[in-house]
Amino acid sequence: MISQPINLKEKLSLFSEHWSPKIIARMNDYHFKLVKFKGEFVWHSHPETDEVFLVLKGSAEILLREGKVSLAAGEMFIVPRGVAHKPQATRECHLMLVEPAGTVNTGDTDGERTAEDNVWI
Amino acid sequence: MISQPINLKEKLSLFSEHWSPKIIARMNDYHFKLVKFKGEFVWHSHPETDEVFLVLKGSAEILLREGKVSLAAGEMFIVPRGVAHKPQATRECHLMLVEPAGTVNTGDTDGERTAEDNVWI
Repeated sequence: MISQPINLKEKLSLFSEHWSPKIIARMNDYHFKLVKFKGEFVWHSHPETDEVFLVLKGSAEILLREGKVSLAAGEMFIVPRGVAHKPQATRECHLMLVEPAGTVNTGDTDGERTAEDNVWI
Repeated sequence: MISQPINLKEKLSLFSEHWSPKIIARMNDYHFKLVKFKGEFVWHSHPETDEVFLVLKGSAEILLREGKVSLAAGEMFIVPRGVAHKPQATRECHLMLVEPAGTVNTGDTDGERTAEDNVWI
């Protein structure tokens, strides 16, 4: 059986909560996830991996210790492994994340914002 | 120094040739590449890795031995490792590819369509 294409808009229509990434695809040991940002996330880092952010709709900011990165739709940014960052978005922003399977959204900062790390949609 | 966001449209404006992926970012041991498809590519497979296709503009088809996958803008598809495939596009189509650094565009089918595998833009 041939697997089907994955339509990003369709997948985004299936959930509404913020800061809770949903897996849409696996490539080798990596997951592709969709997430909706709104408001401020927590400072954290991923000591074991780089993390890719690709903005699909809206805009977001990623605060780093040295400054702020502003991202619009059609722009991507890679936070290097171990680099502290805090995502935020004034209005709702839709993004795709790419990171190793098992990567937790809050990295080394476990807390109430920590999401289930293996939810597929 | 903070690295800059990567704007996909800006990067796409920097080249015009078809079937010649350009690297725009590295995440761990993986490369994110942009490519323009037009016409027919060659049958090939990548015995060592899955390969991600995300259509950014236009539409494309990926022929598999069992049938054809049609992809529109905003859709992605993952060709599993070792699966023979032949991308094609009637009109020019812009895509993002994600695959391990060093992956050659023609996989196990070396030939005149084989592109330089380490070109950044």
